[in-house]
Amino acid sequence: MKFSAERTTLLKALAHIQSVAEKRNTIPILANVLIQAVNGQLSLKATDMEIEVVEVIPATISREGATTAPASVLYEIVRKLPDNVQVELDQAEGDTPLQLRADRFATRLNVLSVDDFPSMGAGELPCHFKVKSTILRSLIDRTRFAISTEETRYYLNGIFFHATENDGKPLLRAVATDGHRLARVEAELPVGAETMPGVIIPRKTVAELRKLLDEAPEEIEIALSETRIQFTAGPIMLTSKLIDGTFPEYDRVIPRNNTRILRVSKKDFADAVARVAAISQERSRPVKLVLEPGLLTLSASSAEQGVAKEELDDNRISFDAEPLEIGFQARYLNDITDQVEKDVEFAFSDSSAPTIVRDVDSPSALYVLMPMRV
Amino acid sequence: MKFSAERTTLLKALAHIQSVAEKRNTIPILANVLIQAVNGQLSLKATDMEIEVVEVIPATISREGATTAPASVLYEIVRKLPDNVQVELDQAEGDTPLQLRADRFATRLNVLSVDDFPSMGAGELPCHFKVKSTILRSLIDRTRFAISTEETRYYLNGIFFHATENDGKPLLRAVATDGHRLARVEAELPVGAETMPGVIIPRKTVAELRKLLDEAPEEIEIALSETRIQFTAGPIMLTSKLIDGTFPEYDRVIPRNNTRILRVSKKDFADAVARVAAISQERSRPVKLVLEPGLLTLSASSAEQGVAKEELDDNRISFDAEPLEIGFQARYLNDITDQVEKDVEFAFSDSSAPTIVRDVDSPSALYVLMPMRV
Repeated sequence: MKFSAERTTLLKALAHIQSVAEKRNTIPILANVLIQAVNGQLSLKATDMEIEVVEVIPATISREGATTAPASVLYEIVRKLPDNVQVELDQAEGDTPLQLRADRFATRLNVLSVDDFPSMGAGELPCHFKVKSTILRSLIDRTRFAISTEETRYYLNGIFFHATENDGKPLLRAVATDGHRLARVEAELPVGAETMPGVIIPRKTVAELRKLLDEAPEEIEIALSETRIQFTAGPIMLTSKLIDGTFPEYDRVIPRNNTRILRVSKKDFADAVARVAAISQERSRPVKLVLEPGLLTLSASSAEQGVAKEELDDNRISFDAEPLEIGFQARYLNDITDQVEKDVEFAFSDSSAPTIVRDVDSPSALYVLMPMRV
Repeated sequence: MKFSAERTTLLKALAHIQSVAEKRNTIPILANVLIQAVNGQLSLKATDMEIEVVEVIPATISREGATTAPASVLYEIVRKLPDNVQVELDQAEGDTPLQLRADRFATRLNVLSVDDFPSMGAGELPCHFKVKSTILRSLIDRTRFAISTEETRYYLNGIFFHATENDGKPLLRAVATDGHRLARVEAELPVGAETMPGVIIPRKTVAELRKLLDEAPEEIEIALSETRIQFTAGPIMLTSKLIDGTFPEYDRVIPRNNTRILRVSKKDFADAVARVAAISQERSRPVKLVLEPGLLTLSASSAEQGVAKEELDDNRISFDAEPLEIGFQARYLNDITDQVEKDVEFAFSDSSAPTIVRDVDSPSALYVLMPMRV
């Protein structure tokens, strides 16, 4: 195998590839990138046996062939080469070292046999459709913060995507929850997605996919079965296993009759939460909201340090229901207000029941937050 | 005590203060800032019993007094207040809580008694002089990387400042070494510093002082004895204990007869080191330099990954002495070339003897680097 490619092109592809390759190589070949120059096309591939990413890049191939080399070393070296230099990679027959040359720099990298490079296998992917990358990005961005990290509840360790409908309007929904908060965001159902099964996309896949979306073409192709999902973004193809579990019936925890409505600017609210929460360094520090008509008082306390409170009056808030005292973890409030553009709406029931939070200008997203005792 | 101050002013002072206050408060009061409104002047003070920093800030004092409150909480709260707001601090007699009010925000912070706030005591500081802050910054920046972190060699855990002379020209010298490399930087001796004792300024003091220098006035006043040093930068005064030890006679390890001279652009050299070193992820990875007239070959290898090398020919380097092979730790080379502006000069003796490194355009700095076997 012998080819040359532009340093910038190669670097961009290796950046995508190397974050999928296993860092801690309990199985050494999983730390490697599979480099294939076949049928006039150069491709790079890495897998951790859960996710597989392949990228095709422009290159001038002078001898076809394939090999595997350490992904992170290759990435670090190419990253440190000067801009705009041509990089030549050359590997003779068998498992002789891969030679990389660029300008006056040369390296010989040890390789592992192509035959040992595992294939995850996508199997058949009967359902396929296209989705705008901006929409996919928004579904991910507004839900991923709520993904659970509890390994025992593995079926919550991802985002649940499924087709549903509301008032006869077909929808694609993304849902994530960790039992303390839930995020549900929906978009118009893409044509072809009507038959898609509900699937749980694992956290790492979500992260890798999200990185690709920063520079993705306008449309992403998605193909899936009940066990695999594949995203094609221009020259990059990401295939992932899905979480083999049942996502809980989340609709049951979304309250229907929360009638005490608070509206407040996201900035005023988030700033006040940050200030009162600064009194305590505990990670799960609670913030108490005391609501009365025309007045919201936020407060927090720490046995050691003291108390802090801030008032937002009717110039800042709108609340006209029965008074209420309710507490939430400060960082859970932050996670949700971070998703809101301008104004946030809270719909409360009582101090121990789940609260609904919405972005006033974006009805496609709904958040549920469990209160904590204060 | 009652006063009000501008949020921005207060925040800037608290930023300086809170990094000196102890985070892990084995002695609770060391986590506090001493706030004093006396003689029409407001000052903030923190200490960890090794360093003490006091800052005077403009404030409108309506009742004099003093108290101590948690430095990091106060800092976090003020940081989160809106810009340009007036902050009012109010503490009644005794150890009643400190009240902070700004706009609609209010907090009550628990205080500890002023009587328990320790004083480090500077004692008499017979030697005093002024130095330009740019010069002090340059002495620190080009030596601090070489400070040892080995606690057993406590006398190397700081920068050694002393008065000396060269060819009858009086000099202020800063020296740091960890036994593997040494940095020696000198400046014109300030008037008044002729009688200064040689002092070792501890690492933490160096770091705190360096932060102040970013926004310091043109001149810094320094006062010192054999056990204390005090820096006055406008409204800020930093006092520190000195390391009670003898700095080694560093001049003995500076070789005098290194005659094999290599000159190379800092960028070419540092880039080549970074590229060849990328072959290995070891922290102490060595880079080998092979020198022959008109050619420098850098190389590194890793048993697992392979080898990398780069050549810099006589378009890039100047070397005209006897051939030589010598190895250095990549990060030690980086630490030194980071200090160099444009061109770097190496003066070698042989492959096992200390090498001298200089910034070609800055004769005031000299570095010594021990080779490692490769």
